Amino acid sequence: MEFAVVGGDMRIVKLAELLALDGHTVRPFGLERGESGVLARSETLREALEGARYVILPLPALTGDVINAPLSKWEIRLSELAEAIFPGQTILAGKAGAALTDAARARSVPVIDYLEREELTVKNAGITAEGAVEILMRELPVTLMGSHILVVGFGRIGKLLALKLRALGACVTCSARKSSDRAWIEALGLKAVDTAKLAGALADVDAVVNTVPARVLGERELAALREGSVCLDLASKPGGVDLEAAKAMGTHVIWALSLPGQVAPVTAGEAIRDAIYNIIYELESE
Amino acid sequence: MEFAVVGGDMRIVKLAELLALDGHTVRPFGLERGESGVLARSETLREALEGARYVILPLPALTGDVINAPLSKWEIRLSELAEAIFPGQTILAGKAGAALTDAARARSVPVIDYLEREELTVKNAGITAEGAVEILMRELPVTLMGSHILVVGFGRIGKLLALKLRALGACVTCSARKSSDRAWIEALGLKAVDTAKLAGALADVDAVVNTVPARVLGERELAALREGSVCLDLASKPGGVDLEAAKAMGTHVIWALSLPGQVAPVTAGEAIRDAIYNIIYELESE
Amino acid sequence: MEFAVVGGDMRIVKLAELLALDGHTVRPFGLERGESGVLARSETLREALEGARYVILPLPALTGDVINAPLSKWEIRLSELAEAIFPGQTILAGKAGAALTDAARARSVPVIDYLEREELTVKNAGITAEGAVEILMRELPVTLMGSHILVVGFGRIGKLLALKLRALGACVTCSARKSSDRAWIEALGLKAVDTAKLAGALADVDAVVNTVPARVLGERELAALREGSVCLDLASKPGGVDLEAAKAMGTHVIWALSLPGQVAPVTAGEAIRDAIYNIIYELESE
Amino acid sequence: MEFAVVGGDMRIVKLAELLALDGHTVRPFGLERGESGVLARSETLREALEGARYVILPLPALTGDVINAPLSKWEIRLSELAEAIFPGQTILAGKAGAALTDAARARSVPVIDYLEREELTVKNAGITAEGAVEILMRELPVTLMGSHILVVGFGRIGKLLALKLRALGACVTCSARKSSDRAWIEALGLKAVDTAKLAGALADVDAVVNTVPARVLGERELAALREGSVCLDLASKPGGVDLEAAKAMGTHVIWALSLPGQVAPVTAGEAIRDAIYNIIYELESE
Repeated sequence: MEFAVVGGDMRIVKLAELLALDGHTVRPFGLERGESGVLARSETLREALEGARYVILPLPALTGDVINAPLSKWEIRLSELAEAIFPGQTILAGKAGAALTDAARARSVPVIDYLEREELTVKNAGITAEGAVEILMRELPVTLMGSHILVVGFGRIGKLLALKLRALGACVTCSARKSSDRAWIEALGLKAVDTAKLAGALADVDAVVNTVPARVLGERELAALREGSVCLDLASKPGGVDLEAAKAMGTHVIWALSLPGQVAPVTAGEAIRDAIYNIIYELESE
Repeated sequence: MEFAVVGGDMRIVKLAELLALDGHTVRPFGLERGESGVLARSETLREALEGARYVILPLPALTGDVINAPLSKWEIRLSELAEAIFPGQTILAGKAGAALTDAARARSVPVIDYLEREELTVKNAGITAEGAVEILMRELPVTLMGSHILVVGFGRIGKLLALKLRALGACVTCSARKSSDRAWIEALGLKAVDTAKLAGALADVDAVVNTVPARVLGERELAALREGSVCLDLASKPGGVDLEAAKAMGTHVIWALSLPGQVAPVTAGEAIRDAIYNIIYELESE
Repeated sequence: MEFAVVGGDMRIVKLAELLALDGHTVRPFGLERGESGVLARSETLREALEGARYVILPLPALTGDVINAPLSKWEIRLSELAEAIFPGQTILAGKAGAALTDAARARSVPVIDYLEREELTVKNAGITAEGAVEILMRELPVTLMGSHILVVGFGRIGKLLALKLRALGACVTCSARKSSDRAWIEALGLKAVDTAKLAGALADVDAVVNTVPARVLGERELAALREGSVCLDLASKPGGVDLEAAKAMGTHVIWALSLPGQVAPVTAGEAIRDAIYNIIYELESE
Repeated sequence: MEFAVVGGDMRIVKLAELLALDGHTVRPFGLERGESGVLARSETLREALEGARYVILPLPALTGDVINAPLSKWEIRLSELAEAIFPGQTILAGKAGAALTDAARARSVPVIDYLEREELTVKNAGITAEGAVEILMRELPVTLMGSHILVVGFGRIGKLLALKLRALGACVTCSARKSSDRAWIEALGLKAVDTAKLAGALADVDAVVNTVPARVLGERELAALREGSVCLDLASKPGGVDLEAAKAMGTHVIWALSLPGQVAPVTAGEAIRDAIYNIIYELESE
């Protein structure tokens, strides 16, 4: 198969290499600073797109009206892409959004959002959880073995992170709002606390990790943390920590976004590749 | 508070004792062969019910039109209970069913099914999973450490069982129909297989454990098992194994039902107690 | 190779079958009640021994002056064996002892004790630890998940047992006399206590498991246990529990000996087979 | 008690703070760049030593004939210390060495090497193992979950590292020379390989971690590694990797020394404090 790969971070570079390793023709554009020698470089966007059956965009696909391409030498506008794309091609993008879908529809090009694949979301959660463990190890002056960690939220990331921390000997408390989630937390051998009553659980922790996309760590919660403890926020924007309050109190906050591409680009690239193969398999067996 | 406890197995005996330990008045009836000296015995059903705010029935509450009371000296008919119950009382029952609800409604007595509490279902899953580990240890001529086990189904019990087996050093494969569940299985570090393609995964296992309430282990699947491997079915009736085919082939099948009350009656009783307290708390704060 | 196998329990039966499966000639004697159809039966001891390069005896090899043969129809005296054995043969036995060694030396037959192989001891410890988990699951009215277990002694069995219990969600304390062992216990994420100060750690446990071959659970320690807790002794004779004191106090004691052959005869047989192969490899490469 | 603390890295700073938190009088010298406000500063070495019952030196205590004091503004010569120290004081030092012992003896001051305490060695092994996990997470482009890691050596660090990696979902092989150690490796559920046959096990790994203080990763072994795999050496000087061969082949080698003070100075400081308390307890109860 022929793929164009336009924009993205290191995991998209690895994705492009993995597709090429599987024997596909891959033409990247906008990955100049991340290229590895495995892939031929396209001089223009049009050259990359030409002949491709699938056009892969990064996740998120756009920043404003520009393709999200931190490794690119050029700014690649959505309008440029829309002009260059060929009818008959299919766009595969992460967090596609209305602007991209509309622009593509005007060219009769379908857009499929690979981030809506549950299998990719789960794999990204696993990579993010491992990245969070790495950050905690780096930031804490104590070992995880024997430390007290509070994980806020028992979604995909919270679940996997709590299990990894426990496996390393940390004493882990996990918070959830639903009593059935708290039953799950206890069934896994962890301590459960109601997210509505966080403050009481914060006093003794070496670190708190937030995974909930809501302002759960406000002034009252931050005030309950003891001096020197670490606050790691994994929630996407606008984040779960009151950063101003944290600054005023001198709390050490790390806000980590898009961990998969940073901490394990090869595994993250493999996860996107698998999702893309599943999408193509379903498209072509329709 | 005053409770009547009518019928049930050892976990209901333990439940009654736990309620009494918490300072409540508990009058059991139909637990004669399981009584432990902690509890005063009621001579008649009416004596047990008198004064009680809540009437606790077992899980399942009924076998046909008789209260499920394996430890009772007497048969306790639903009609008897319906006659003896007082308006103003509330029945708390497991798998209540229409017959019970109708009979109670005729007496203006509400019925609440405690088995519908997710927190109880999760705790029972944990107990069942541990019971399944015990059965496998007892039945297998090899240690779980180093053995190959296939767990069919990735619901509550499947998930917890797979993690426990892996923790003991077994090489665990878990089957699921949904690709997102298979992604979860892999994110937890286990091997995943599509339930639709079970036969291929069965050839090498020392044991297969079914948790799916559907006929997943039919003739074709059983034929794929190698001689001497163990087949444990945890699915409620009608079960997931073709028992006739298994008999014809000489496959060793264990069909284990209602494990919580058998393997850990105290923990199972605690789980029901907690669910009942949650129900009462919600009722009384309405 | 040709093997005679004389006496033993189910793990020796499995050992004999495993040797036969590997293509060796195996003639068993004294395993009548455990035979499985795989092996040809010898009518006399002499017939079993004839032609064998190695004569395998069980573990322990003798009870008094009789071969330890619980599955035999006949009593096999050491003197009989000594008479029947051929010079040029080699005896492989577990816990050989002076009587056997002397009798064999008189016939110029060397005796090698396979139980002195560290690799076998470690494997037996793993099987014993798993067997102890099974016993605890069977005896306790609570799940191991959430229970409090004290493991006395941090030798091979204590180490492996503590890790398995922890993996199942038990809260595990491990006792050791040496401060370096206690440092190890804590490095593995378990709670440590000094064996000299056991009594204080006993009050809260659901079960205590002794692995130390010394009277560590005397009257004072047993008195510290709360009612209903379980006491499992894995120590070989004379055991680590004051049984008379336990009886007087009504403590529930299980004294479990020779677990490997009972709980996982195939794995136990494999472990002996591997040790025997290592012995033969070293003998023949000398 | 009164302590002088002379030289050392961040874990010694933390040690000094922990001693002060326990209510002892602590006078540090040579920790200027690491001081935290908790501790009063001594202007001269003599001022720090005056009145102290115990003089704590770092680990290792000396670099040549100078106290190992990376956080000091001044160079502190052993001769200076020897001159300033008071008879009646006791030196507690890590890897004391002959030069220090001789100099102290000349002043009738006893030297006790706290690194000879097994409990400290074990704790340092745990911290080092966790630090190694952090380094692997940082260096590998894949997650540890699902990766293949070879740990060379099954001493304290190898054991704890292998268990931690396995707990995070890595597929771990552990090498050892002794067959009894390999039996232990398998009893813990890991794959074992003979250290003498390393090359065969290296081809498939994402990373190899050496814990053996001997040249185990020579040209032949490094050549067996596939491109892109990571080589982490935890062995103290001269290390276990042929660095010249590695450079010639372009193998990515990380040689990590003295991890405890870098990755978890508080836990490392606590471990030294506990060892020092044990030493003092034994000294004073003599």
